[in-house]
Amino acid sequence: MSNFEIVKTNGAVRQAVLSTQSGAIQTPVFMPIATAGSIKTMTAEEVKAVGAQIILGNTYHLLLRPGPELLQEVGGIKKLMRWEGPMLTDSGGYQVFSLSKINKTDEDGVTFQSHIDGRSIRITPESSLAVQHAIGSDIRMQFDDVAAGVSTRERYEDAMLRSLRWAERSKTAHRNLQTESQLFGIIQGGTHEDLRDQSLDGLIKIGFDGYAIGGLSVGESRMDTFRIAKHIAERMPADRPRYFMGGGMPEEIVYYVSVGIDMFDCVLPTRNARHGQLFTWAGDPATCVREALTRAQEGAADTRIAEALYRKIQITNEGFTADLSPIDPWNDTPTSQLYTKAYLRHLFKASEYLALRLATLQNVRFYIRMMEELRRLV
Amino acid sequence: MSNFEIVKTNGAVRQAVLSTQSGAIQTPVFMPIATAGSIKTMTAEEVKAVGAQIILGNTYHLLLRPGPELLQEVGGIKKLMRWEGPMLTDSGGYQVFSLSKINKTDEDGVTFQSHIDGRSIRITPESSLAVQHAIGSDIRMQFDDVAAGVSTRERYEDAMLRSLRWAERSKTAHRNLQTESQLFGIIQGGTHEDLRDQSLDGLIKIGFDGYAIGGLSVGESRMDTFRIAKHIAERMPADRPRYFMGGGMPEEIVYYVSVGIDMFDCVLPTRNARHGQLFTWAGDPATCVREALTRAQEGAADTRIAEALYRKIQITNEGFTADLSPIDPWNDTPTSQLYTKAYLRHLFKASEYLALRLATLQNVRFYIRMMEELRRLV
Repeated sequence: MSNFEIVKTNGAVRQAVLSTQSGAIQTPVFMPIATAGSIKTMTAEEVKAVGAQIILGNTYHLLLRPGPELLQEVGGIKKLMRWEGPMLTDSGGYQVFSLSKINKTDEDGVTFQSHIDGRSIRITPESSLAVQHAIGSDIRMQFDDVAAGVSTRERYEDAMLRSLRWAERSKTAHRNLQTESQLFGIIQGGTHEDLRDQSLDGLIKIGFDGYAIGGLSVGESRMDTFRIAKHIAERMPADRPRYFMGGGMPEEIVYYVSVGIDMFDCVLPTRNARHGQLFTWAGDPATCVREALTRAQEGAADTRIAEALYRKIQITNEGFTADLSPIDPWNDTPTSQLYTKAYLRHLFKASEYLALRLATLQNVRFYIRMMEELRRLV
Repeated sequence: MSNFEIVKTNGAVRQAVLSTQSGAIQTPVFMPIATAGSIKTMTAEEVKAVGAQIILGNTYHLLLRPGPELLQEVGGIKKLMRWEGPMLTDSGGYQVFSLSKINKTDEDGVTFQSHIDGRSIRITPESSLAVQHAIGSDIRMQFDDVAAGVSTRERYEDAMLRSLRWAERSKTAHRNLQTESQLFGIIQGGTHEDLRDQSLDGLIKIGFDGYAIGGLSVGESRMDTFRIAKHIAERMPADRPRYFMGGGMPEEIVYYVSVGIDMFDCVLPTRNARHGQLFTWAGDPATCVREALTRAQEGAADTRIAEALYRKIQITNEGFTADLSPIDPWNDTPTSQLYTKAYLRHLFKASEYLALRLATLQNVRFYIRMMEELRRLV
C-alpha cells in the first residue's frame, strides 16, 4: 500500500493523504518548526489546536542539545514534548551550512563547530540517520550537501553529485535501522534545470518514500526559485509526496502549491512573530486564498499574489498605539480575535513574553489556515 | 455595608470576603503581579484558570508605559489585558525607591529618572492617584515614602511622618476622583514598634478601606520582618483587610497569615520561574500547608515552616537531565503534571520561551494553591 493517496487534483494542484506510522496528513500541508523541541512559545497542545498536522524537528539543533544519547534514553523528542502526531526531521545538512561558523566538507561527511560551545562535531549520512532515529521522527531526510544560493555551476554540480552519493548511503543506513519511518531524497542542482533533472533521476533510481526540493530559498532571486520549483515539480513522481524545503512567504507557498508541491516548512511565521511582524488576512480567508491561487495559476507576479492574501503589519508601529480593533478579525485563533492591536503593541514595547505568544499564534494559524483553504480549492 | 466580612477565624487567622466593584475575593489571598499589563508569559484567561482572584498592577511601570493618557483613552489596563476581576495598584512609591536611578524626594513628591529612557518624571500623592485612576484599578494605594531596609531611626521616622502627610493628601485626591474604588493606607516606621504604632494611629484617624504594611522585606533581617509584622498585625483594625506588601517566600506568607494578615503580593513565583527555580510541593498540598501553619502558630523557625511546605528545585541542574517524572506531581496545573522535569530542563538549556511558561505556571499555581489550603484551615 502506498504512503500517498491523491484524493483530487485541480490543474497541477493536488489534494492528497500522506500516511505515516503516527497518523495521516492531509496535503498540501505546512509544518511548523519545532527547532529544539518546541514550536517557539507554544505547547504541543496549542500547536495541535491551531491545526498543525505534522511538525518539523531540526536534527542539527537536537544533536547538539539535548543530544542523541538522552533522546534515545527518554524515547525521543516527541515523547518529551508530548507531540503525538507525525514529525519530520531534516538531516542537519542545511543548518551546518547556515549556522555553524566553520564547516569542512569531505567525501565522507561534514565537520563543523557547534554554534553553542564551539566543540567540533562530525555528521555523515550514516550518523545523520542515526540521530534522526534517536529523535524518533516519522519522516527522515537524506543527508545532503547544500551549495550557497549564488554558486558556480561547478559547485552546484559537485554538491548535487555528492548529495546523490550521500542519498545512496542514507538509504542504506535507513534500511539498516529497520524502522517503520519514511525516508525522503533531496533534489539539488542549484538554479540549473539540467543539474536538477540529473539529481531527480539519480534519486528515483535509488527510490524514496518522497522527494524534496533542497537548495532553494538560499539567496538566489525569487524568479530563479520559481523557475526551478516549477520545472522540477512537473518532473517529480506524481505518486509520491513533493516537499519544498524551507520556503517561504505565503505568496511563495501558494505558487509552489499551484505547480503541484505538497509539503512546506518555514521559520517565517514564528521568526517574524518574534519581531512583531504579523501576517493578517486581507479579508475573508477563503476568498483571499482562492484569489491568490487563481493569480498564481495565471502567472501573476508574486507581489500580486501576496496582495490578495495578506497585509504584513509591524505591530510596534506608532499607528497601533490606541488601535482597539482585534489583532486580526479574520484569524480564527481565539487570541487574535480577543486581544487588540493596542494591547499587542504595548506588550511588545514593554518586552513582555506574552507578546511573542500572541504574535506566534497569529502567524502560525495564518499559515495553517492558508493550507486548509488551499486544500478546499482542489 | 462593609467591604470586608469575616467568615471564620482560627486563632489570629481569618477567612474573609473582600468585596470590590469588580467582584468579591476570598482571603487570605495572593495577588500575582501584572507589572506592565501581563502576568509574565500568561494570558488573563490562564491567570484566572490557575485560580487567581485579584491581580496587582504596578503604577510606576504603567505610568512610564503605556502611560496614563493611553490608558484613559482605551478604558484602563484591565480592558486592554482582558482581566475582568479585581485589580489592586500600588502607588509607585516603592518602585521609584527600588528601580529608578536617581530620585529626589521633597515634601511635595518625588522626582526620578525613568529607568527606560532617563527622562525626568515627578510623582506626587495627587498624581499617583490620578494615574491609578487612569489604570482603572479597584483597590488603590496611598503614595508613600519608603526608607531602605537598614536606615537610621531618624530616616524611618521622617519617611513615616511624610507618608502620613501623603496619606492625608492621597485620601483627599481619591475622594475628589469620585470613584467606587477603594483606597488603602500604608503603615511605615521601619523596624521600630513605636514608629509603626504611630503610623497606624495616624492612618486610622484619616480612615481607609484597608491597611497595608509597607517598608518590610526591603533588606532588613527576616527576624525583624516577622517581629514587626506580628506586632503591627495584632494592632491593625480587625474589621478591615490587612495587606503585607511585597512578601515573600511561601514560609513567610504562612507566617503572616498565622498572625492575621489577609493579602499578599510578590514577584518571587514569577521571577524565580524565569531563572528555573521551582517551588514544588513537599507532598500532598493540604497536608503540607496544615503542617506549615501549625509550625508557624507554634513559633517554629522559618526554615522549619519551609521544610513542611516545599522543595525549591533548580530545574537546570544536571540531575534532571533524564528525569521523566512530572514537573510536580502534586501541582494540579495540567502542564506540571503532563510535562517532565527532563523536558523543562531541556527547554531552559535550549533557551526556549516555553520553559518560562511552564515554570511560571508551576510557581504561580503553587502560591495560589497554598492560599486555597490556608483558607480551608480556618
